[in-house]
Amino acid sequence: MDFQHSPKAQEYIKRVSEFMKNEIDPIEESYLRELHSLDDKWVVLPIIEELKAKAKAAGLWNLFFPNESHGVGLTNLEYAPLAEIMGRSFIASEIFNCNAPDTGNMEVLEKYGTAEQQEKWLKPLMAGEIRSAFCMTEPGVASSDATNMEATAIVEGDEVVLNGRKWWTTGIGHPNCKVGIFMGLTNPEAHRHQQHSMVLFDFDTPGVKIERMLPVFGHYDEPFGHGEMTFDNVRVPLSNMIAGPGRGFEIAQGRLGPGRIHHCMRLIGGAEKALELMCKRAVSRTAFGKPIANLGGNRDIIANARMSIEQARLLVLKAAWIIDKVGVMAAMSEISQIKVIAPNIAQQICDAAMQIHGGGGLSDDFPLTGIYAQARALRLADGPDEVHRGLVAKFELMKYRKYMAEK
Amino acid sequence: MDFQHSPKAQEYIKRVSEFMKNEIDPIEESYLRELHSLDDKWVVLPIIEELKAKAKAAGLWNLFFPNESHGVGLTNLEYAPLAEIMGRSFIASEIFNCNAPDTGNMEVLEKYGTAEQQEKWLKPLMAGEIRSAFCMTEPGVASSDATNMEATAIVEGDEVVLNGRKWWTTGIGHPNCKVGIFMGLTNPEAHRHQQHSMVLFDFDTPGVKIERMLPVFGHYDEPFGHGEMTFDNVRVPLSNMIAGPGRGFEIAQGRLGPGRIHHCMRLIGGAEKALELMCKRAVSRTAFGKPIANLGGNRDIIANARMSIEQARLLVLKAAWIIDKVGVMAAMSEISQIKVIAPNIAQQICDAAMQIHGGGGLSDDFPLTGIYAQARALRLADGPDEVHRGLVAKFELMKYRKYMAEK
Amino acid sequence: MDFQHSPKAQEYIKRVSEFMKNEIDPIEESYLRELHSLDDKWVVLPIIEELKAKAKAAGLWNLFFPNESHGVGLTNLEYAPLAEIMGRSFIASEIFNCNAPDTGNMEVLEKYGTAEQQEKWLKPLMAGEIRSAFCMTEPGVASSDATNMEATAIVEGDEVVLNGRKWWTTGIGHPNCKVGIFMGLTNPEAHRHQQHSMVLFDFDTPGVKIERMLPVFGHYDEPFGHGEMTFDNVRVPLSNMIAGPGRGFEIAQGRLGPGRIHHCMRLIGGAEKALELMCKRAVSRTAFGKPIANLGGNRDIIANARMSIEQARLLVLKAAWIIDKVGVMAAMSEISQIKVIAPNIAQQICDAAMQIHGGGGLSDDFPLTGIYAQARALRLADGPDEVHRGLVAKFELMKYRKYMAEK
Amino acid sequence: MDFQHSPKAQEYIKRVSEFMKNEIDPIEESYLRELHSLDDKWVVLPIIEELKAKAKAAGLWNLFFPNESHGVGLTNLEYAPLAEIMGRSFIASEIFNCNAPDTGNMEVLEKYGTAEQQEKWLKPLMAGEIRSAFCMTEPGVASSDATNMEATAIVEGDEVVLNGRKWWTTGIGHPNCKVGIFMGLTNPEAHRHQQHSMVLFDFDTPGVKIERMLPVFGHYDEPFGHGEMTFDNVRVPLSNMIAGPGRGFEIAQGRLGPGRIHHCMRLIGGAEKALELMCKRAVSRTAFGKPIANLGGNRDIIANARMSIEQARLLVLKAAWIIDKVGVMAAMSEISQIKVIAPNIAQQICDAAMQIHGGGGLSDDFPLTGIYAQARALRLADGPDEVHRGLVAKFELMKYRKYMAEK
Repeated sequence: MDFQHSPKAQEYIKRVSEFMKNEIDPIEESYLRELHSLDDKWVVLPIIEELKAKAKAAGLWNLFFPNESHGVGLTNLEYAPLAEIMGRSFIASEIFNCNAPDTGNMEVLEKYGTAEQQEKWLKPLMAGEIRSAFCMTEPGVASSDATNMEATAIVEGDEVVLNGRKWWTTGIGHPNCKVGIFMGLTNPEAHRHQQHSMVLFDFDTPGVKIERMLPVFGHYDEPFGHGEMTFDNVRVPLSNMIAGPGRGFEIAQGRLGPGRIHHCMRLIGGAEKALELMCKRAVSRTAFGKPIANLGGNRDIIANARMSIEQARLLVLKAAWIIDKVGVMAAMSEISQIKVIAPNIAQQICDAAMQIHGGGGLSDDFPLTGIYAQARALRLADGPDEVHRGLVAKFELMKYRKYMAEK
Repeated sequence: MDFQHSPKAQEYIKRVSEFMKNEIDPIEESYLRELHSLDDKWVVLPIIEELKAKAKAAGLWNLFFPNESHGVGLTNLEYAPLAEIMGRSFIASEIFNCNAPDTGNMEVLEKYGTAEQQEKWLKPLMAGEIRSAFCMTEPGVASSDATNMEATAIVEGDEVVLNGRKWWTTGIGHPNCKVGIFMGLTNPEAHRHQQHSMVLFDFDTPGVKIERMLPVFGHYDEPFGHGEMTFDNVRVPLSNMIAGPGRGFEIAQGRLGPGRIHHCMRLIGGAEKALELMCKRAVSRTAFGKPIANLGGNRDIIANARMSIEQARLLVLKAAWIIDKVGVMAAMSEISQIKVIAPNIAQQICDAAMQIHGGGGLSDDFPLTGIYAQARALRLADGPDEVHRGLVAKFELMKYRKYMAEK
Repeated sequence: MDFQHSPKAQEYIKRVSEFMKNEIDPIEESYLRELHSLDDKWVVLPIIEELKAKAKAAGLWNLFFPNESHGVGLTNLEYAPLAEIMGRSFIASEIFNCNAPDTGNMEVLEKYGTAEQQEKWLKPLMAGEIRSAFCMTEPGVASSDATNMEATAIVEGDEVVLNGRKWWTTGIGHPNCKVGIFMGLTNPEAHRHQQHSMVLFDFDTPGVKIERMLPVFGHYDEPFGHGEMTFDNVRVPLSNMIAGPGRGFEIAQGRLGPGRIHHCMRLIGGAEKALELMCKRAVSRTAFGKPIANLGGNRDIIANARMSIEQARLLVLKAAWIIDKVGVMAAMSEISQIKVIAPNIAQQICDAAMQIHGGGGLSDDFPLTGIYAQARALRLADGPDEVHRGLVAKFELMKYRKYMAEK
Repeated sequence: MDFQHSPKAQEYIKRVSEFMKNEIDPIEESYLRELHSLDDKWVVLPIIEELKAKAKAAGLWNLFFPNESHGVGLTNLEYAPLAEIMGRSFIASEIFNCNAPDTGNMEVLEKYGTAEQQEKWLKPLMAGEIRSAFCMTEPGVASSDATNMEATAIVEGDEVVLNGRKWWTTGIGHPNCKVGIFMGLTNPEAHRHQQHSMVLFDFDTPGVKIERMLPVFGHYDEPFGHGEMTFDNVRVPLSNMIAGPGRGFEIAQGRLGPGRIHHCMRLIGGAEKALELMCKRAVSRTAFGKPIANLGGNRDIIANARMSIEQARLLVLKAAWIIDKVGVMAAMSEISQIKVIAPNIAQQICDAAMQIHGGGGLSDDFPLTGIYAQARALRLADGPDEVHRGLVAKFELMKYRKYMAEK
């Protein structure tokens, strides 16, 4: 047992940290201020493309790919601390071409895509030239139960016809968002987990419509955003289907393991950022003649935040290690555990940080409500807390099957 | 001991509920949709003035005034359930001319104002013709300790000169906001609680500037809003001072008791609204073959929400009863208790309601993030949780002074 | 609405408080020390009978009876504050002849007992000459679901035959415990809530056996105690049956309402006692140069305790008021609410009080572990938290039946 | 980074697990029943000595010693999982000669003891022939602040004179408890952390008196126990002093790091045991027609327990790793973190397990109240939660010293 990162991971931690410190930290606040001052915030400001080019030139590009042929060949365990560092910023992930949902979409294309699909979509995604979306959640049904899905992807000859309404599709506000993966019902007669397919579509296909963008606690997360879409008899070639009809859940499953590591580590980065702001405020502001840090239970709050982060981070790293060593299936309980823990602690720590900041903490003067919104959203996205707690309990209780009551 | 409202309160509960049901509920959603579709949301739509006129005509106007000469003479205990009903809506308080900070400002003017001040400002406020603001919190210092206040209100001859920066001043976005009460340091040599004064100012006085409007969790609460203001050598006649130099804290104290009852009851209304939405969703949506209400710990969550609300409401009502019977000073601990409890339970219940709503709960499709933002903000406004818990503990420990250790 | 106790309640609050202060407080600690120093702790020390005689002489006897013909005719709402005062002591309830389960058993006998049953058992119980037990919970099944009950009460001619194993039967260690009420299955063919009967039995009936006494967190609660019993073909006359075959649940239901008010108010008294001890310790002990009260989050803990108690008490009083005004059935949700809230807050406050006491708080030098054990036990006795939360949710969701999903 | 135990640790995990399974698990329940049936429970039953001999013969002896010359040379990180396994049992630690406070006392003697001290006391302790005690906590002062200590260890010529009152001295009920380490004030003029000394004493020295044994939540933990002692002019040779006058805190500090790893890992073992019992009960008991596991929020409770344990264990292992790699001083924050986390989660999980067990969970039929009492006690022993949270916050805030406000 060893709690030190590999030399390779340590090297990348150093390089990514320095890039953050030298290139991103100095401009993030002014970038966000400029963006938010615009009437149309759904744009890519030049500084973003400049930084992407710098990151690419520095070899800090597609770091998430656990595969030497595409990225730098970091394992999930090695990439995890980099995701944490990126999670301290609202823009870093895009700059390193490591932002969701592109990461997951690239992994799916790399693993299941045909040569043609890869040429057409994986290549420009890896180059950071286009962005992508993943269309799963639906407004009309409880998406916590994915088998509730009502949208359809019907094979007709050499075409697939997509119909339905999706929402919380992330990234569709981005001007470069060109391709999406649509998940829909293909064969209601098949086994419960073999009814759905994943199908690629271009955003300019007739019948694809962005109905509106959705706020998360008032944040639209421009220029990416989350939106509601309708698919009205959208016809795409059968060759746009990924892996084949009915394989949607299988692909989703493989996609979600590493994706949850990334999400959770980014939130741990967000939680660290919130704790840092909380501490700085606690030592620098005074009330009743003392630094706020010395008032009431504030030190307990700071200690609790530190303890929560330490524990959550170790659990995420262990989950990444199991994925690397044994595979996603062996890490199912741990992946669900971190999916509950990381967003919950990040939400709590942000809330505490806001409180110590006073009114300012609730405004946009600090990144706290933004991190909070990300954490709160992740308690629902990719499966709500309740579903993941249920899975953890299921794995736990399976150990005691032989004690099971008859009825 | 009797847990039934007085016949007078019951009558007004019935009348206000009916007005809500017949006039406000049917139009609130479309009103909000229309407002939010505007480029300039800082406006009063005609429907608001129409409803105000109807409410006034129906005798449901200035209900908060515990004084027959101004309102209908309801006690704090009798008005409390009406505030709860209004708290279920984002617009009802204004329609009944019972919205903060106007209520508190009117009470101050009624109690401490000169005939001239009352004629000029109280009268149009009571008529709902103008709106007002209260300028206390400052960005540069921890406002949890009100004696930190740095803005100044210096008497020079027959004028008062106001200087400083204030923020979280509620209502200043409203086109009818014409008058404000500014609190500032007049005499730094006086006793700690006799240094500050309250001074009335018109918004068109030279030197008064609205710097920007502030979001709370992304919500600007148009058309009222919360903003940051600067006062640059603002000169007003000495007759604009309320009660006299150095009496700011005394006035603030008296103002805050009933104001906190109102705030807390409105949040209890908000919490009830969130619980209602949670229950409706829980019985109407299905996942894994069951109504969501029957999954996992959801019934515990609903039960906990009900228990929190029942307890919090009783405590607020008891605090109101003490104010009515004995006065604000006798209710200091209870007022601080409700100021902690009500926003915290409202926040928790909203969070739980969001979770049961899935992604939609985080969007503007439901009023949940709005109620959440109000609750979260009230954990800081009018004194943060920490200060109020400290006061409750202080009153508790005072009972045991004789056991006090020497050192 | 009025938060002041009736003049009659106020008078009894004064009289019971004075009796506590003058007669019980001065001797309780030495009484407990003497009792615990004995090899056989299952005895009644003379001081107890002396104090019972004094209480009876003072007219402070059977106060719980909401009926002038038996007690002093206090309503549930009027008796509640007296139960709270008694709950501050481990012995007061017995001294005022207001201890469970005798109170519930007396109420059952008064309401459902025949003249013969009342003469034989109610009279000596009301005189404090004998004690009684109530046999419901069983070790072999989950008693949270009372219909799981396996013990039988079979009518054979003019006899009833009792068989089965019961545990957590309170009071059977007491040397004066002479009579019990046994609940068992009489007719498995009847409707789910009409299968069980309640039957009176004398402890010296052949076949009745006390198997062992059970500790609660290491406390045996001598001389009352809680125990495990077996019933092996215990034959009693049919005239010992209460109300008639199959009426067990009906009787249990009516019994539990006021009983829960008593339990909860006693625990609120226990919680007040714990808070008092916590405050005294916090102001009188010093560490790091300050009274403990001024360290870290201790004032928050004290404030939270005060807020929890205030809220819980009001809710219990309201539940009592509904029982008095409308009846037990109208108060079902509130009764379940307080049954969850009161023991949970009492447990938390005791835990916090222990922490502030340091090691001593875990020992028998303070009453904290004793109050804790009572609170912890009540989270299971008379229905576990889970069942009561479920009932609260059920009543809440019933309001929204029309929104119910089809499946 | 690697989450797999070293081959050596894995081997010992296997061997200790097998010894537990084959030798301890089969007899523990009957051993405890026999012990508790005795009038005098302060005895060593023969089975204990038999098992000790077997463990010693199997090479599973003094495993805690991170030093080849005394034990088997396991690092703290390697020993940690063994402590967890032992923590599932109330007797295993003694059988492997790894019980507190002997472990800490042996480490102190090994590190600081003279040859004479080692010959006289370390040797028989390592052989398991005698037991020992550590006298630190005092009833008269808040021991959370160790500098409060009032007992004295005054050097007079070639003797040290011990005076004072100590309590919560663990192990003094054991018939083999022969030696103790007394900590007392030697030089009140010295620097705050150089005033106290540690002095060895035999229990038969005149003036040493065991005043009484103390229960923890009603548990006396026979035959070890915790007690209150007085020292009345106890004279021992100066050669009994450890390391020299004024070095008490220095020794205590070094002692506490590994000791806290042991305590925390044992509690994690206790928490695992509680979770195991909870799951078995949840699947095997039925209520309302379902296994309890499928009712309400029970699966959430199980999932939360699993997540808490996983996180806490990783944090303890990381703290052990830092101690091994860099030393106790580098692990100060982590050691305080685990000292808060492990007992708190163990207490919560035990409480939840009790609830799922119903009444039985509160009795001695299950080990739950025993594990609970250990966890609850450790929230105070070796420094209360509050002190450790304070340390964690202090280390956290030190990072931001340069932002510190002036006042």
